[in-house]
Amino acid sequence: MKMMVDLKERSYPIILEKGCTQRLSDVLNTSKKTFVISDEGVPECWKQRILTQLSDAVLFVVPQGEDSKSFEWYEKALKTMLSHQFHRKDQVIALGGGVVGDLAGFVASSYMRGIDFIQIPTTTLSQIDSSIGGKVAINVDGIKNCVGAFWQPKLVLIDPEVLSTLPKRHFNNGLVEALKAGCIQDAELFQIFETGNIEEQLEEILLRSLMMKKRVVEEDETEQGLRKILNFGHTIGHAIESYSMPQFYHGEAVGLGMLLMCEDETIRQRIRKCLSRLECPTDIDVNAEALFEVLTMDKKAGKDSVSVVVIDKIGEARVETRNFAQMKELLNRRETE
Amino acid sequence: MKMMVDLKERSYPIILEKGCTQRLSDVLNTSKKTFVISDEGVPECWKQRILTQLSDAVLFVVPQGEDSKSFEWYEKALKTMLSHQFHRKDQVIALGGGVVGDLAGFVASSYMRGIDFIQIPTTTLSQIDSSIGGKVAINVDGIKNCVGAFWQPKLVLIDPEVLSTLPKRHFNNGLVEALKAGCIQDAELFQIFETGNIEEQLEEILLRSLMMKKRVVEEDETEQGLRKILNFGHTIGHAIESYSMPQFYHGEAVGLGMLLMCEDETIRQRIRKCLSRLECPTDIDVNAEALFEVLTMDKKAGKDSVSVVVIDKIGEARVETRNFAQMKELLNRRETE
Repeated sequence: MKMMVDLKERSYPIILEKGCTQRLSDVLNTSKKTFVISDEGVPECWKQRILTQLSDAVLFVVPQGEDSKSFEWYEKALKTMLSHQFHRKDQVIALGGGVVGDLAGFVASSYMRGIDFIQIPTTTLSQIDSSIGGKVAINVDGIKNCVGAFWQPKLVLIDPEVLSTLPKRHFNNGLVEALKAGCIQDAELFQIFETGNIEEQLEEILLRSLMMKKRVVEEDETEQGLRKILNFGHTIGHAIESYSMPQFYHGEAVGLGMLLMCEDETIRQRIRKCLSRLECPTDIDVNAEALFEVLTMDKKAGKDSVSVVVIDKIGEARVETRNFAQMKELLNRRETE
Repeated sequence: MKMMVDLKERSYPIILEKGCTQRLSDVLNTSKKTFVISDEGVPECWKQRILTQLSDAVLFVVPQGEDSKSFEWYEKALKTMLSHQFHRKDQVIALGGGVVGDLAGFVASSYMRGIDFIQIPTTTLSQIDSSIGGKVAINVDGIKNCVGAFWQPKLVLIDPEVLSTLPKRHFNNGLVEALKAGCIQDAELFQIFETGNIEEQLEEILLRSLMMKKRVVEEDETEQGLRKILNFGHTIGHAIESYSMPQFYHGEAVGLGMLLMCEDETIRQRIRKCLSRLECPTDIDVNAEALFEVLTMDKKAGKDSVSVVVIDKIGEARVETRNFAQMKELLNRRETE
């Protein structure tokens, strides 16, 4: 199925369909010169599947993992494009997970001041979350996503088939973002994680998560207001990811972040149960001081306060401001729990 | 006087007023944390004038010249901002010429995915041209402006007073962009250069140039159509600037570019006369092959053609496409002239 993300002149379709990566010429211009950015973790079969359908492509492969979202790889990618004489009317494809999408998106946003960008996400995390919404970035000096842009793709191709090669831990890790989507906007989606059959209902999970993200992004493209609810679990999640890296994956850290931040005890236990079903960690040795330090450097942080997402009931969220003292207190409480 | 550049939610005022840089608190929030990017060529008096009016500012000074529009300085600036814990709601001021504006703008566009940006141009070139329009970029591997963004400032402050310390060659160099503005859109502005008193009519020159640029940018923010006429003389001008660097300044190279590209002999002689009055070079040893090579790598170039600006009469321009063979022929003709 095809759904449009409606952002006026920056609108684009998301195509969610088993096997859609086998029929590229139906949905994009395969004769355009294309810079394909992927990583070493993406199985060769998917790379070949894409490359063989493009008539003029250059493949650029980065090492797997968060470290590739760096100045070094950003610069290397741009210089490789220059050396292959890419022009403004050519295109960039991101074939991989969130790291590849973020790096490739920032490259596309800035090469010749911006060229076309297509997302072909290959992980649950990127299919559910990072491939749509146009937030692209790299990390600098250990600060996540602190340099980047809002750059919308021209097309997002979501093919559940490519998830078949994804290791189980990665697979579950990405589903935490769908669980978050359920928490903040879709009680029925949450229900699937609580009592449903996750593997069998995978396409419904993808679809519901995408619909939620699409709605929120349409309403608030550059995160002035509503879009902040997507950050549920992320403010602390990023801190956990930063200071305990590489112990936790992004989704795992976000899951822990949701547990740390959730103030309603009943909701907290329900989330914990869902995370357990996803075989994700539900306990962490909280180092309140270290978390607090990373937290205040988050780009969502203000001078003396941060925005937090409060869940009143499953499926309903709102954004509130907490000052640094309140955050410190919460973290100290969690440390001793 | 104050004029608004109307770009919907990205609209911003340009203030053109002698001494306006002495009254910052009238036009911007001077208590916000501010990262001021400037260069070694900007006299200390202007830096101090700005800094003393800001309650929480960090000054970042790059070497003078095009080489500062590099990855190296881009990265240094961002890391300095991180180390001073700048947040998303803080602001960046560019205090300098085009190089500083381009670098600072790209830094502002990407720091935390974009923060507020204020232009205080200190050269004729940047007051007339580069400080408005939102095109920001760095150079990579000798290719000008090949990595960057469209990032509109929140405010542009144009103070003719700061031009008092500008060396004569720099002063004239910038006026070539005003001459270009006259060629493509404003015959009366052209007239000033042909027969008027350039120094006495400076404020009119600034105002007319800004009005022209504002009109064109409003109609075509991201250079899909009309805005391309601003590139008159630039396609080849950039090539001249790249391969003969540091022999010619930007405006000088653009002036030569206008002469090389202008096909109407009468108009060409009139432009030549104006350039002479500005004490700018009007002759160059054309190396057709070298120019052609840089030309085809220009980001405005297509696979086998480039856009060129044709002047039918002074004040009226249109964009046409020339294939590589035609460009080669024109350059060869100029080489033997």
